[in-house]
Amino acid sequence: MTNRRTSASASRRPVSAARPRRRPRLAPVRLGIIGLGVRTEVLLASLAGIEGAETVAVCDVREAAVAKILGILERQGKPAPAVFRDYRRLLEQRAVDAVLVPTSWNSHLPIATDALLAGKYAAIEVGGASSTEELWRLVRASEATGVSCMMLENCCYARNELMVMNLVRQGLFGELIHCEGGYEHDLREFACMVEAGYERSIHNRFRNGDIYPTHQLGPIAKILDINRGNRFLKLTSTASKARGMQLAARKHYGAGTPFGEIAFNMGDIVTTVITCANGETITLTHGIALPRPYSRNGRVQGTRGIWLEDANGIYIDGMSPSIQEIDVAGNPYTTHKWEPVESFYETYDHPIWQTYRRQKQLGGHGGIDSLALRAFIDAVRDRAETPIDAYDVAAWMSVTCLSEQSIACGGQPVPFPDFTDGKWIARGRAPAGPWAL
Amino acid sequence: MTNRRTSASASRRPVSAARPRRRPRLAPVRLGIIGLGVRTEVLLASLAGIEGAETVAVCDVREAAVAKILGILERQGKPAPAVFRDYRRLLEQRAVDAVLVPTSWNSHLPIATDALLAGKYAAIEVGGASSTEELWRLVRASEATGVSCMMLENCCYARNELMVMNLVRQGLFGELIHCEGGYEHDLREFACMVEAGYERSIHNRFRNGDIYPTHQLGPIAKILDINRGNRFLKLTSTASKARGMQLAARKHYGAGTPFGEIAFNMGDIVTTVITCANGETITLTHGIALPRPYSRNGRVQGTRGIWLEDANGIYIDGMSPSIQEIDVAGNPYTTHKWEPVESFYETYDHPIWQTYRRQKQLGGHGGIDSLALRAFIDAVRDRAETPIDAYDVAAWMSVTCLSEQSIACGGQPVPFPDFTDGKWIARGRAPAGPWAL
Repeated sequence: MTNRRTSASASRRPVSAARPRRRPRLAPVRLGIIGLGVRTEVLLASLAGIEGAETVAVCDVREAAVAKILGILERQGKPAPAVFRDYRRLLEQRAVDAVLVPTSWNSHLPIATDALLAGKYAAIEVGGASSTEELWRLVRASEATGVSCMMLENCCYARNELMVMNLVRQGLFGELIHCEGGYEHDLREFACMVEAGYERSIHNRFRNGDIYPTHQLGPIAKILDINRGNRFLKLTSTASKARGMQLAARKHYGAGTPFGEIAFNMGDIVTTVITCANGETITLTHGIALPRPYSRNGRVQGTRGIWLEDANGIYIDGMSPSIQEIDVAGNPYTTHKWEPVESFYETYDHPIWQTYRRQKQLGGHGGIDSLALRAFIDAVRDRAETPIDAYDVAAWMSVTCLSEQSIACGGQPVPFPDFTDGKWIARGRAPAGPWAL
Repeated sequence: MTNRRTSASASRRPVSAARPRRRPRLAPVRLGIIGLGVRTEVLLASLAGIEGAETVAVCDVREAAVAKILGILERQGKPAPAVFRDYRRLLEQRAVDAVLVPTSWNSHLPIATDALLAGKYAAIEVGGASSTEELWRLVRASEATGVSCMMLENCCYARNELMVMNLVRQGLFGELIHCEGGYEHDLREFACMVEAGYERSIHNRFRNGDIYPTHQLGPIAKILDINRGNRFLKLTSTASKARGMQLAARKHYGAGTPFGEIAFNMGDIVTTVITCANGETITLTHGIALPRPYSRNGRVQGTRGIWLEDANGIYIDGMSPSIQEIDVAGNPYTTHKWEPVESFYETYDHPIWQTYRRQKQLGGHGGIDSLALRAFIDAVRDRAETPIDAYDVAAWMSVTCLSEQSIACGGQPVPFPDFTDGKWIARGRAPAGPWAL
């Protein structure tokens, strides 16, 4: 483990330095990729920079998609991988250590479950579940085989989220009380295209719930030690009316046309409030159908401190500025002032970002895709637990179907299954390591 | 009505101008004030600058409080008011046109109801109700007498909230979809003092719900036309654990002392999600027990635009900056940028703020106390409807007891009574006027 840290520091040296420091070559990790869509193109950009990551097999039923991915690998100077049309054949290959499953939201859970049952580590992309049953199957497969399934939730490795985790673990926020998160991203121009096969358009057309909860829930769950001394207990979910996507479809296809007048079931804003076993609350917001700047609505708040993404601020009691003022009647009162998030980086960046912050060309989404992939690949190499495991995947993704159920019942509270069967109580925090969350 | 506007412009002229423009003197409005606490001191600072507002009667059972208020009026050069110990005696006075009722949260509703029944206009301070029954009594008293009860919700006259209303009414936000608001104010140093009679300390000790919803809900309700073509339909409410106030009490009184170890029932963060008849959702947050900068969490979002207080930003589709970017895989995407709220003031300030923005010395809370008081006093003078009426008071304050009920039932959705008995459907927006909301 120390080796990787050393190698990362070494790589920060200018390329022109006379003799690069010698370090042991990392053993290769042989990857299969199942599902070769746009997301895979982004993943390949990150994989190209990760030493030891070898794409030895790819799988898709769409020949054009296969050709495009083979072309990218060729331009990267990589050896041509074996190509499969049936993912079950790919899973039979002894030469594959692990699979990435960037397939559709309705297929990545069963495919990942099959991968675990075949003894392969599996990495899925973000998303939500359609039923708790498909999550139980994943959990049982991981428990039965001892093989880990990780969600490549890149936001768990985002700089601010990791720094806030660091501040929390150092006790600077006190006891945690409340968190917020969300996915607020104007995706009208893509998601309104119901005939283009764009995944969100289908789910937004037919479903009504928080179908994309993990970008901020993942980091929050890690910060709140979910499945390791804490767990999600219940949620309530509420959907606004649906207008934005239909207006976008009308604009795109024309008023009065069949696609232009299509109905979307998904409320433009879905608000979900989760209660945790230890009494913390989490408010999640999903909104992709309205114009606004992007935000993940991050908020982590404890008895001593708070981070609020939209204010780009952190406030820590007794440390951040606090000013005595006098009101018109002459009575004193105190006002607290935000400190900019950036002013904490130098001292409080998480060790992962202390190591990587000067590295360039980290790949997709400002480097965080690469960090999540590195975490997965290193775990596969070491046959270790992934920092996000099947219990995490199940807890996080269950928000989607439970949210749909709550909305269907008019906002009724819905309990979370305990996917750990009680093990969350005694499971301690994951052992320290370069990628531990 | 035009006269008042003219007088406001005139008053902006330098005092040294040779001859002040002549204008008719406003008829006096004779006020009784019931309850002479700290809030009354702040109100008097605002009343002093309002032409025609005469404090002719005051009432409190506490002689020291009476003496303090009489001292303030004397220093302001005002005539001494009549003093009452029993508010019912004050309500019998023909010389009183209207009463301000800045009494405790548990007493202002029944006193205001008695005032309406005595034919006096009544203004109450902000707060929440303990039962829907006390709100029904207020509504029935107002309906029976034709006299109006206003909540002095100063935030309804705050600059940003009014400007956002103006933007919404001009259609710049499109159809409204979702709003957020809250009261996040670190009040630990006062509210932990359980023996000092500070009102919040009592309510935070015994209750668990959003006991202070109106500061942002009031403006939002006006923007959403609640009780005038729309209404609150249901809510769910969720409370976090309670830690902040007890820690503050322990610090204030000492660990191990009776007051230092006292329990507070109120969750540190209470999250309430309201659904409106026309499909909009509203998320409210109450938090006074944790350290953080003040915020009312304002957010108003429609199909074309959004205001977000914590980002100090407004984004309007097709008007605010939007930038085309390219991801690592070469695919294009668009990012939207906030515009600072201040950049909208010049063009979009609400007429009320266009009139008053250059006026100084408006009294408490940056002038908004004064605006709310002027709105009330002008309505009394004209025997007109107040811009916030008994139906509004009932709808807004009912959030408190309904939130307590929802939390008590584990987050169960709770329906709102329709305090208008169906009149909300046909009631149009209030007639235009200088204070109309």
